[in-house]
Amino acid sequence: MNAAMEHRMKIGFIGLGRMGTAIAGRLLRHGFDLAVYNRTPEKAADLAKAGARVATSIADVCGGRNVVITMLADDAAIDAVVLGQGGVRDSLAAGAIHIAMGTHGVDAIRALDAAHRQGGQQLVAAPVLGRPDAAEAGQLGIVAAGPAEAVAACQPVFDVIGKRTFKAGDGAAGAAAIKLSNNFLLGCCIEAMGEAFSLVRKYGVAPEVLYDVLTEGLFAAPAYKVYGRLIVDEAYDKVGFATLLGLKDINLVLAAGQAERVPLPSASNLRDRLLGAIAHGDGDKDWAVVAREQARASGLE
Amino acid sequence: MNAAMEHRMKIGFIGLGRMGTAIAGRLLRHGFDLAVYNRTPEKAADLAKAGARVATSIADVCGGRNVVITMLADDAAIDAVVLGQGGVRDSLAAGAIHIAMGTHGVDAIRALDAAHRQGGQQLVAAPVLGRPDAAEAGQLGIVAAGPAEAVAACQPVFDVIGKRTFKAGDGAAGAAAIKLSNNFLLGCCIEAMGEAFSLVRKYGVAPEVLYDVLTEGLFAAPAYKVYGRLIVDEAYDKVGFATLLGLKDINLVLAAGQAERVPLPSASNLRDRLLGAIAHGDGDKDWAVVAREQARASGLE
Amino acid sequence: MNAAMEHRMKIGFIGLGRMGTAIAGRLLRHGFDLAVYNRTPEKAADLAKAGARVATSIADVCGGRNVVITMLADDAAIDAVVLGQGGVRDSLAAGAIHIAMGTHGVDAIRALDAAHRQGGQQLVAAPVLGRPDAAEAGQLGIVAAGPAEAVAACQPVFDVIGKRTFKAGDGAAGAAAIKLSNNFLLGCCIEAMGEAFSLVRKYGVAPEVLYDVLTEGLFAAPAYKVYGRLIVDEAYDKVGFATLLGLKDINLVLAAGQAERVPLPSASNLRDRLLGAIAHGDGDKDWAVVAREQARASGLE
Amino acid sequence: MNAAMEHRMKIGFIGLGRMGTAIAGRLLRHGFDLAVYNRTPEKAADLAKAGARVATSIADVCGGRNVVITMLADDAAIDAVVLGQGGVRDSLAAGAIHIAMGTHGVDAIRALDAAHRQGGQQLVAAPVLGRPDAAEAGQLGIVAAGPAEAVAACQPVFDVIGKRTFKAGDGAAGAAAIKLSNNFLLGCCIEAMGEAFSLVRKYGVAPEVLYDVLTEGLFAAPAYKVYGRLIVDEAYDKVGFATLLGLKDINLVLAAGQAERVPLPSASNLRDRLLGAIAHGDGDKDWAVVAREQARASGLE
Repeated sequence: MNAAMEHRMKIGFIGLGRMGTAIAGRLLRHGFDLAVYNRTPEKAADLAKAGARVATSIADVCGGRNVVITMLADDAAIDAVVLGQGGVRDSLAAGAIHIAMGTHGVDAIRALDAAHRQGGQQLVAAPVLGRPDAAEAGQLGIVAAGPAEAVAACQPVFDVIGKRTFKAGDGAAGAAAIKLSNNFLLGCCIEAMGEAFSLVRKYGVAPEVLYDVLTEGLFAAPAYKVYGRLIVDEAYDKVGFATLLGLKDINLVLAAGQAERVPLPSASNLRDRLLGAIAHGDGDKDWAVVAREQARASGLE
Repeated sequence: MNAAMEHRMKIGFIGLGRMGTAIAGRLLRHGFDLAVYNRTPEKAADLAKAGARVATSIADVCGGRNVVITMLADDAAIDAVVLGQGGVRDSLAAGAIHIAMGTHGVDAIRALDAAHRQGGQQLVAAPVLGRPDAAEAGQLGIVAAGPAEAVAACQPVFDVIGKRTFKAGDGAAGAAAIKLSNNFLLGCCIEAMGEAFSLVRKYGVAPEVLYDVLTEGLFAAPAYKVYGRLIVDEAYDKVGFATLLGLKDINLVLAAGQAERVPLPSASNLRDRLLGAIAHGDGDKDWAVVAREQARASGLE
Repeated sequence: MNAAMEHRMKIGFIGLGRMGTAIAGRLLRHGFDLAVYNRTPEKAADLAKAGARVATSIADVCGGRNVVITMLADDAAIDAVVLGQGGVRDSLAAGAIHIAMGTHGVDAIRALDAAHRQGGQQLVAAPVLGRPDAAEAGQLGIVAAGPAEAVAACQPVFDVIGKRTFKAGDGAAGAAAIKLSNNFLLGCCIEAMGEAFSLVRKYGVAPEVLYDVLTEGLFAAPAYKVYGRLIVDEAYDKVGFATLLGLKDINLVLAAGQAERVPLPSASNLRDRLLGAIAHGDGDKDWAVVAREQARASGLE
Repeated sequence: MNAAMEHRMKIGFIGLGRMGTAIAGRLLRHGFDLAVYNRTPEKAADLAKAGARVATSIADVCGGRNVVITMLADDAAIDAVVLGQGGVRDSLAAGAIHIAMGTHGVDAIRALDAAHRQGGQQLVAAPVLGRPDAAEAGQLGIVAAGPAEAVAACQPVFDVIGKRTFKAGDGAAGAAAIKLSNNFLLGCCIEAMGEAFSLVRKYGVAPEVLYDVLTEGLFAAPAYKVYGRLIVDEAYDKVGFATLLGLKDINLVLAAGQAERVPLPSASNLRDRLLGAIAHGDGDKDWAVVAREQARASGLE
């Protein structure tokens, strides 16, 4: 899409949580024509000042738009917003594109995809990698999948908010599988560290030593540095991602495995540990708290 | 230990495999007084040219030495070399130090430690992180544990072969626990990637896409880059570390867990996958081949 | 409830699969006043001849009834039948009892329970143990839970179709938990046998020997006799309970664990094995086929 | 072997724990010529009164015997007794038979088998099913494997102590695989019940209800009745089989799997739970205490 096409892009944006607000704000700052909608309209105030039109309903935010972006918290929310009566499917023009940027399960994405096809619309799944501040800085990773020309048409949006677009093929569910895999590997990294930290503690070694060995060696990566640090400091109250949300995501991973018949024993194990942590009252802690659950299982707490 | 002390250090070195030869060579090049011993003496030829005295027996390599270094393949080897009749325990002078640099189990290290205490000697466990070329370049990581003054006395050796010494406490077994944990986390990283690669393949996404997402993001670390690449390329014949050796190491991890009562479900799961790979004839492949075993379990092969 | 009360019991019956038909038939033969309803009305023909009134809608089958029994295949079916517009909740008189006899998840049961409370009705969950022929013979086990006086009011029904009623407390979900636990333990029994049969085959022992040891000893019970026999004979085409249904049930078990925060590692493991079997094309075989999946994982097939 | 042959059978018996004493006593009462040996000779006193010759060494108990029976606690004990200097292998006449009746690992059995072959002797592995009182009553189950004619020659012994001999083939290790499988399935039964009891407790159902459902239905077998009762009563101090011994057995199961490349995820899971129980101080309780460990993991304790 060239600059001329870009200027013809009229975007509706639904879902103004922290990430949605950051993305919408950046799009506005880069000159996109944006209508925004949130169930609780107060959240749109700042964006309105920055030039967004605040829509009063889903139908309203879809009206006259050739692209609608959703950034919603979970599958239930996107189901309601898109498939409900007067929802995106009912309201979006034929030929328009829905970019689903939240983290959703493959079943939800496939249901949306089928619904949009019936409506003559196109679905591009484009979950993002990174936090809201990365969105504001245009430094997200974007995993995009869907019909090739629809993905191409969305590129101007991706270029503004992200540093790289990872193309995950024609099937929108493929982008969900990639995003979920990323979260799954993060959970496995935490779980494995949790087990190892319990082990070395039992041998009288300060956790810090293992942290240094890992992060100065084979595991010199953000996942190990950030979560290893949380575990070493037992700083589970600094909640980057809550245990209950971790459980939700791992359930989506397992559901993705089930839909295509892939046994995922590491995910099963992680799920059991998350449940144990929640059973012990740590559901609202950062999901690094699985390390504490492991310590409990080892008789250390 | 200052330069004067260093020159008084007389080292016996047992075990001239690739890693042992690299370490011994570097020590020689840095002026250490070295006697070397290997069961098959041919392996000592190059070191002899470089100035090492080639000993004819374990007793001979220990004679008059205040430090003996072992770099042996497994627990059976070090048991035989140290605890056997005429072994290191029988031959090493009281007050001397045995530095065990191989990857050993906590039970073996504890047995050696007890034996050396009886002999009036000191054990420092100092397994290394890195490959032989890192040893030649003095770039190993060294995980050292044992009596504090003994570890301090060994520092000149560590400084020559390594870039950093990670001090793992007073108990020699602690160093083993750290080294085993590092290998354990590597195995978990491979297993989790194997599961994720099977998952995305089922969604029609090229494995390369997941590789890029991981290694440009949260998992930008050697473990993921090296092993992710092996899995994407299915290059399991490039054997960096064989599946059967992986099984040996994971068994040591589980034994370390058992000795101190730490359940390690991720290790249990990895062990089962390694066994499955071996059952399918992949025991001599690189242990990244657990990704192929996962693919089999998913009906992909 | 005495005989007089029993004669005042007017029952609506929804769901005429094999089990439903068997139960309804037995109730008719014992003189109960029965209206029956099935989505495909042909299935009601025999019961009509036996004296049942064939209702034309859910509203019709509920009309004037003080008890409605459902025997439906899954949670989606009971959700639709009870909570849908014009469903049981809308149609059943205040004060009447809904006996849910199918195998349902705890979440579904709790949702039904809440809905019925709002409608002034009572829910008794009463899943059954046994096959349709046991129902015809009045030899089912019945696990009943719900408000004590409602369960007591249902006793005449239970007495006719079952040999024993197991009372699982005031909370209807408790009956689901018991029934699901029973199925869960059956799956674990099959999985463990599958692993053991692979093991002894590798040692050159005929599976029959293990079968005899088990079933003449500690495991002389129907679960081991029936499923051990299937495994020994590799008679997976004799489908008593299909693998895909097994997966559905184990998912309900895991969901029950999740709802109350109970990690269930044996269920997780079984689920992974079921998925592996389905991935290899065995979804329609008897779920004893997990033993074949185990054999595959062991390199035996 | 007819009666004439039987009278020519001269038996040495090593290992007079509770089971060994019961078996030896029964053999004596049935007229066998028995020499007995135990490391602590006091245990032989009652058997001496009953007519046994009390030997003073392993060599002595083997002298002039054509059959030696061992009933020893573990692999270390049988290794020492058979393979040690002056042990059974050194002392037993060529052509004689060693019947190993303890529960041993496949690796130990294979090592014994190889050693006896070198010594011109034959090994029959014949682990028993049942408790000492069953031995006294001649009601054991016996799992026998080894060279066919050697097994046949031992039949008179088996007939006196057992109600049935299960023949597990030519390879002595096969009998170990069967016996270990039996113990493995028992552990799985306990673990699965433990998970289920935690589950139903969370739904407010009395454990007794699940117990009744299981033991009056699909699981009406001693394993479920005995261990289910222990769990319901939380009677873990009534130690039939201690958790630490359970761990030893499950390790033997896993080692048997490893030797022939059989992944055994249920055994891995059980091992982790046993370790957790031991970590919480329950190593000396009956191994049914894994149910309490499960309850802990569920936040119930």
